[in-house]
Amino acid sequence: MPRITNGETEAEQREVEAFLADPSANPQVKHSWRPYLEAKLGFRNHWYPAVFSHELNGDEPKPVKLLGERILLRRVEGQVCAVEDRCAHRRVSFSAKIECYTKDTITCWYHGFTYSLRDGTLVQVITEPGCALVGKMRIKTYPVQEAQGMVLLYLGDGEPPALADDIPPGFLDTDVAVRGIHREVNSNWRLGAENGFDTTHIYIHRNSKFMQTTDALLPLGLVPTSKHSMDIVEGPGPKGVIDKLADNYTPVFASTLDTVTISARMRPQGQAVAYRVSMWLPCVLRVEEFPSPGITQFEWYVPVDEKTHRYWQVLGKKVGTTEEAAAFRAEVDSYWEDVALRGFNDDDIWAREALEDAYTEGAGWTKERLFKPDMCIVEWRKLASKYNRGIQRETR
Amino acid sequence: MPRITNGETEAEQREVEAFLADPSANPQVKHSWRPYLEAKLGFRNHWYPAVFSHELNGDEPKPVKLLGERILLRRVEGQVCAVEDRCAHRRVSFSAKIECYTKDTITCWYHGFTYSLRDGTLVQVITEPGCALVGKMRIKTYPVQEAQGMVLLYLGDGEPPALADDIPPGFLDTDVAVRGIHREVNSNWRLGAENGFDTTHIYIHRNSKFMQTTDALLPLGLVPTSKHSMDIVEGPGPKGVIDKLADNYTPVFASTLDTVTISARMRPQGQAVAYRVSMWLPCVLRVEEFPSPGITQFEWYVPVDEKTHRYWQVLGKKVGTTEEAAAFRAEVDSYWEDVALRGFNDDDIWAREALEDAYTEGAGWTKERLFKPDMCIVEWRKLASKYNRGIQRETR
Amino acid sequence: MPRITNGETEAEQREVEAFLADPSANPQVKHSWRPYLEAKLGFRNHWYPAVFSHELNGDEPKPVKLLGERILLRRVEGQVCAVEDRCAHRRVSFSAKIECYTKDTITCWYHGFTYSLRDGTLVQVITEPGCALVGKMRIKTYPVQEAQGMVLLYLGDGEPPALADDIPPGFLDTDVAVRGIHREVNSNWRLGAENGFDTTHIYIHRNSKFMQTTDALLPLGLVPTSKHSMDIVEGPGPKGVIDKLADNYTPVFASTLDTVTISARMRPQGQAVAYRVSMWLPCVLRVEEFPSPGITQFEWYVPVDEKTHRYWQVLGKKVGTTEEAAAFRAEVDSYWEDVALRGFNDDDIWAREALEDAYTEGAGWTKERLFKPDMCIVEWRKLASKYNRGIQRETR
Repeated sequence: MPRITNGETEAEQREVEAFLADPSANPQVKHSWRPYLEAKLGFRNHWYPAVFSHELNGDEPKPVKLLGERILLRRVEGQVCAVEDRCAHRRVSFSAKIECYTKDTITCWYHGFTYSLRDGTLVQVITEPGCALVGKMRIKTYPVQEAQGMVLLYLGDGEPPALADDIPPGFLDTDVAVRGIHREVNSNWRLGAENGFDTTHIYIHRNSKFMQTTDALLPLGLVPTSKHSMDIVEGPGPKGVIDKLADNYTPVFASTLDTVTISARMRPQGQAVAYRVSMWLPCVLRVEEFPSPGITQFEWYVPVDEKTHRYWQVLGKKVGTTEEAAAFRAEVDSYWEDVALRGFNDDDIWAREALEDAYTEGAGWTKERLFKPDMCIVEWRKLASKYNRGIQRETR
Repeated sequence: MPRITNGETEAEQREVEAFLADPSANPQVKHSWRPYLEAKLGFRNHWYPAVFSHELNGDEPKPVKLLGERILLRRVEGQVCAVEDRCAHRRVSFSAKIECYTKDTITCWYHGFTYSLRDGTLVQVITEPGCALVGKMRIKTYPVQEAQGMVLLYLGDGEPPALADDIPPGFLDTDVAVRGIHREVNSNWRLGAENGFDTTHIYIHRNSKFMQTTDALLPLGLVPTSKHSMDIVEGPGPKGVIDKLADNYTPVFASTLDTVTISARMRPQGQAVAYRVSMWLPCVLRVEEFPSPGITQFEWYVPVDEKTHRYWQVLGKKVGTTEEAAAFRAEVDSYWEDVALRGFNDDDIWAREALEDAYTEGAGWTKERLFKPDMCIVEWRKLASKYNRGIQRETR
Repeated sequence: MPRITNGETEAEQREVEAFLADPSANPQVKHSWRPYLEAKLGFRNHWYPAVFSHELNGDEPKPVKLLGERILLRRVEGQVCAVEDRCAHRRVSFSAKIECYTKDTITCWYHGFTYSLRDGTLVQVITEPGCALVGKMRIKTYPVQEAQGMVLLYLGDGEPPALADDIPPGFLDTDVAVRGIHREVNSNWRLGAENGFDTTHIYIHRNSKFMQTTDALLPLGLVPTSKHSMDIVEGPGPKGVIDKLADNYTPVFASTLDTVTISARMRPQGQAVAYRVSMWLPCVLRVEEFPSPGITQFEWYVPVDEKTHRYWQVLGKKVGTTEEAAAFRAEVDSYWEDVALRGFNDDDIWAREALEDAYTEGAGWTKERLFKPDMCIVEWRKLASKYNRGIQRETR
């Protein structure tokens, strides 16, 4: 069983609370998330989704960029292979002009250097058969696993950990059907993660299409009750921060400003959603009972480069039969993608891109001034700083 | 009465003249304008025009950028308020999505942090009513004054000086009617100032629409007579350099090159224009008797960022009645804007942008080779270096 | 007679071979091409083509950029003059708005500074006739020569060497007719040079229009025979590396990969082409018997800036009469330009631009892993490092 603490020791909790009340008095708190601040390109030695399985049609190769690394994917006899998308000779990208003469090789368009996609070994040089480097030179390969219709890569060194260690609990369960989309967002991955996990950002969704279309009841904000409400899951297994919205927060449905009242959208039979939200290493959010009771939304904010992340939005639901699974996927395609994945989360994409200027271009990381509901963000930064397996550095 | 010198001591004058004759022999002269060379973003602790009064329609907020700072303007019960355009919480720009629930507040679109526009205080957090930070946190506000139909801001620290100290004499006179335009130019503000004050750049206007349309008589160039011709106005009050074109320069109406003669555009009843030109801190030009006798042109080159300035072109005229004032404004709108503000000054905009490559991208500031008519520019650089109230540094 | 060695001493040859077999064991080899790695903007104190003679129509001035320097060309009484394209006064480019009042001067559009195109002297200031700087200030001029319908400039200091020292043997011969084109390519000049001289890159041309249209026979690759095959021409006269393709390489017409065979395009009456390829300082390639027996292709990769070179493609042929010369030029215009200069070399342009990311943006120069056929590139880098007359540094 993983160790779950209620937010470290009481002394540490008090320290964080004191920090939020007056950051200047407790600068040492920020030191505990320094690794996170350095992780512009994400954390190394973790598993990340690269593409959906169905995107690798037949054996057509597909280039992707993850954590600043160019990678080429190709399905070889059913198994997905992933290699560095650079020839070891002159370092050009294979994907600039893809040449595959056999089912399990990639040939560089420039001088015909041909590598095995299985282990990266140079197996032939078309322009110099019998080249002395054959068998002696190789390009980097990446461990690959397919799960839940997704192709995941290990970006790191040495033996990879179990895939399940980098996936939120529940997602890989065999009775869970999943369906989703991914797209590129013009913001650093951490702004994606923080926007998603941020309890109080729900304010930006109050007029979204999702709110106009569904029965969901969403407060303007959520105020933590006095008791520290987060569970810190420290492994073995996935590491994450769980924020129990339904249990430990007081929802705010109306606020006043002078004589003006700002109200959340209310409806008679409104259904409460999003009972628990949790953020997991390396960059995954889980929102339970969302966008509807019985459904869980999983989101990855996969670093592409310093200014871009790939935003994965995947819905999961427990199903009993393959018919139920198919029905759920059809429901996502025909309804939830439009109403929730776009009709709700498009607001988030906009917000993350609006944060870029303050954080990536500016001094947001040092000049920000957090408030009490940001406790979840502080806990996420601390957890990520403590349990990440390495900082990704730029490599060209 | 302000102290006016005829260009410092005679010894200093001789030094500048010697510098212009042979820069390598007197490098110390350049030291006296070092602060000016550092002022990429302009001078701090001065008043700058932000918008015309009529641009703040009703109480609709309007974002502006001055000296690299993002500022939000809004009219509150008739008074213009100006605050930093960044929420203190996560530092996003309010103007990315403006929310104003009451007449004197700005609410951040992200978490509902709401600030008073009058003093910048956090007055409410919509997502957490009763937040402990309310009343304790604030955003920066800017002193504002309206004068002559313009909204001016003080970009600086501490108590602002009198507005009149940063405005050329005459502009604020109650019997002066003014009218003008502003637009953004792709050059550093100093290139705007130097092009405008540069006596001899009139050469570029010789074929302008203004010259083809009006009776104005403009020489090809102006050569300083032997006597040093500038008045250095050192306050109290506004600080500036006055160059008395009509008194101390010999106009050049024709030049020869081999057997070729280059002539200024002459016409029988030509009217001499631009009797005196002066340049004032922080970045204002005054051209008397221009574009026509009885009219004075005022120009501000307001720093926006290192590569952009906002070019203000305002014409002023002494008037006796409100009818005369209205007639003058109509004359500017229907005639002078087209013929002079565009038909003459568009040449200047082009020239400033052509200077960018040499100065902002290149080493123009150290490699330039000034000549005698550039004395006015040297005096401006020295005055600005000596009397500015601070150098603006980049802040994010 | 120039000294020609067969690739330095045997000991040095063995060192290079050992380096190619295992770069980590012989890092000192790379030290011998360090000057080349620094020459982002090319080599100083050499002759470079600027434009074709016919591009200087009448006396219309024309701006060019070479090795990062802005230059203005104009034909004065038949002779081409070349001056710095920056006024010494405020350093703006003359070419932003060209003004020439007389046949042998350039006047700056800003203040009328007028320079002799013959020697760069300031001969007049239109805005201040009799300016004290006249006759005392000058702009840089460049030595110019016209040869074979091309205008060549010396970019350097001091007395230029003979033009012939920077031109491959044969090109300037009086019985050689030449014809060609030039265009700008988005890659550093060294990537142009290395792609052109690279023996084995012919692989990229195997399906080009040239191969589909002509009788040329082109192998997939060329493998050096055991004997070291390059001639190093060390002057006096031009310095270059000659790679005798026909004599010292074994052509590869087919390669196998598993059960797949990749074949060069074969045809019954195929004609072997490209007997010898040589690369000369400062940046010129010569390909003999190409694109057809009896024709030689000359290519310059002239540095424009760090990320751009001007690609010159000129075909030369020995002719007996002016009629033969005219016929050859017509043949280039009507056939070879389409079929070879574009139908073959467009592949090269594409390849050079695809190399940019790995070399100019990335760490290609240190991470590349050369193989035996790259011996020619190693020899070129060594020769260029040893015999260049200077490294061009950025000047603004």
